[in-house]
Amino acid sequence: MIHKVNIAEKFNLIEEFWSPRIAGELNDSFIKIAKLKGEFIWHHHEDEDEMFLVVHGKLIIRLRDRDIKLREGEFVIIPKRVEHMPVADDEVHVILLKPKSIINTGNLQDEHTVIDQWI
Amino acid sequence: MIHKVNIAEKFNLIEEFWSPRIAGELNDSFIKIAKLKGEFIWHHHEDEDEMFLVVHGKLIIRLRDRDIKLREGEFVIIPKRVEHMPVADDEVHVILLKPKSIINTGNLQDEHTVIDQWI
Repeated sequence: MIHKVNIAEKFNLIEEFWSPRIAGELNDSFIKIAKLKGEFIWHHHEDEDEMFLVVHGKLIIRLRDRDIKLREGEFVIIPKRVEHMPVADDEVHVILLKPKSIINTGNLQDEHTVIDQWI
Repeated sequence: MIHKVNIAEKFNLIEEFWSPRIAGELNDSFIKIAKLKGEFIWHHHEDEDEMFLVVHGKLIIRLRDRDIKLREGEFVIIPKRVEHMPVADDEVHVILLKPKSIINTGNLQDEHTVIDQWI
């Protein structure tokens, strides 16, 4: 069934931070949305590039050598094997594009690791 | 080189309608942006699903049995082999997510077919 997705409506259904939810799938990728607040952990993804597109708020992606500061309407693609740490001083809403195989904490699995579900 | 992309700034560089430009790549996909105005052609993509995310304006995706009307902040995924025809009564800005292999006119190649370039 083909249906449109209203991104703001989907965000209204999310209560938890750092818990991406699947909003769409195409080819080998998931379109995910997530609310972020605070610091995540340093991690990398061994085989997958990852895109962060900010739709609300300001997001910092810390790299080992510098910070990338994203505002609403900006995206960055973090290539595979590049260590990164998302930081949101205030609440941020992001669209994530990832291969279906990806784990949110990449090379690490700990209490931050979640199995993403549809929304 | 990892760098952020400001989507509005990229749209400012586009003058033509129906000529997607590549704004990013990750894994096997291109992130493309396009300005649309008027009617495109009926077509389908044999092997690839395609996502349309509207960031400005109102877009109609005609299917053979109904229309899907998208506003800013809404997306739809058109599965492979589904015939569709984008229609924009006024100027629309969309983000497109497509496999790197895809041709904009899908099963047809005519004067609407373009080779997408980076922006």
